[in-house]
Amino acid sequence: MSASYEGFCPIARTLDVIGERWTILILRDLLLEGPRKFQDLQRSLSGVSPNTLSARLKRLEEDGVITHSFYEQHPPRAEYLLTDKGRALGPSLAALRDWGLQHAGGRMHPKYRGLGTASRPKERP
Amino acid sequence: MSASYEGFCPIARTLDVIGERWTILILRDLLLEGPRKFQDLQRSLSGVSPNTLSARLKRLEEDGVITHSFYEQHPPRAEYLLTDKGRALGPSLAALRDWGLQHAGGRMHPKYRGLGTASRPKERP
Repeated sequence: MSASYEGFCPIARTLDVIGERWTILILRDLLLEGPRKFQDLQRSLSGVSPNTLSARLKRLEEDGVITHSFYEQHPPRAEYLLTDKGRALGPSLAALRDWGLQHAGGRMHPKYRGLGTASRPKERP
Repeated sequence: MSASYEGFCPIARTLDVIGERWTILILRDLLLEGPRKFQDLQRSLSGVSPNTLSARLKRLEEDGVITHSFYEQHPPRAEYLLTDKGRALGPSLAALRDWGLQHAGGRMHPKYRGLGTASRPKERP
């Protein structure tokens, strides 16, 4: 019962990719706001250092969760956006939001409704 | 659009409580296995130091997510278990599991099915 199952645990593998506070907040912003520039993310994640933000974005890109495109060529200016794999994290973030609302204080900016629901849409009979 | 909304973000508040890898894996074990002793958790979370595990358990207890009871009085031996607030994290962990399964490798020990589903049970007409 108590042996280590890490290699077979899909939660542990998910945390290998997104298990860090800033990382989840980056994904939150991209899910809610669409493509974001480095400066947008830095402003929104108050307290993050440029080096940390840069490292998190690089890792997310290596893991195929986000990608970047250039919205300006001279000088080159990038914006970050979610891949399909990244967008698939929506229900996880919605579930974290719902728990926070119910168990960690009820205040919420209306924009967080944009994450949709944690549950899949009900099938109609 | 890019101002900081941290105080109004229920995801950020959730991460204040559970936003750390070991913390989420502790909750996973308690959700899947029921009450656990310190030694059980230490064995399952391979790589965690006793000090770190102890600090995470203390914090979760302060936040009302877990509690402990004594299964032996002489010498006193505690086991940790979830409160209602902690059990309410089940759908969040199921959502993380589902994403891991689909996007971070398909291997899963059968016990992880015990987390149930990320979606609420369908209402029958």
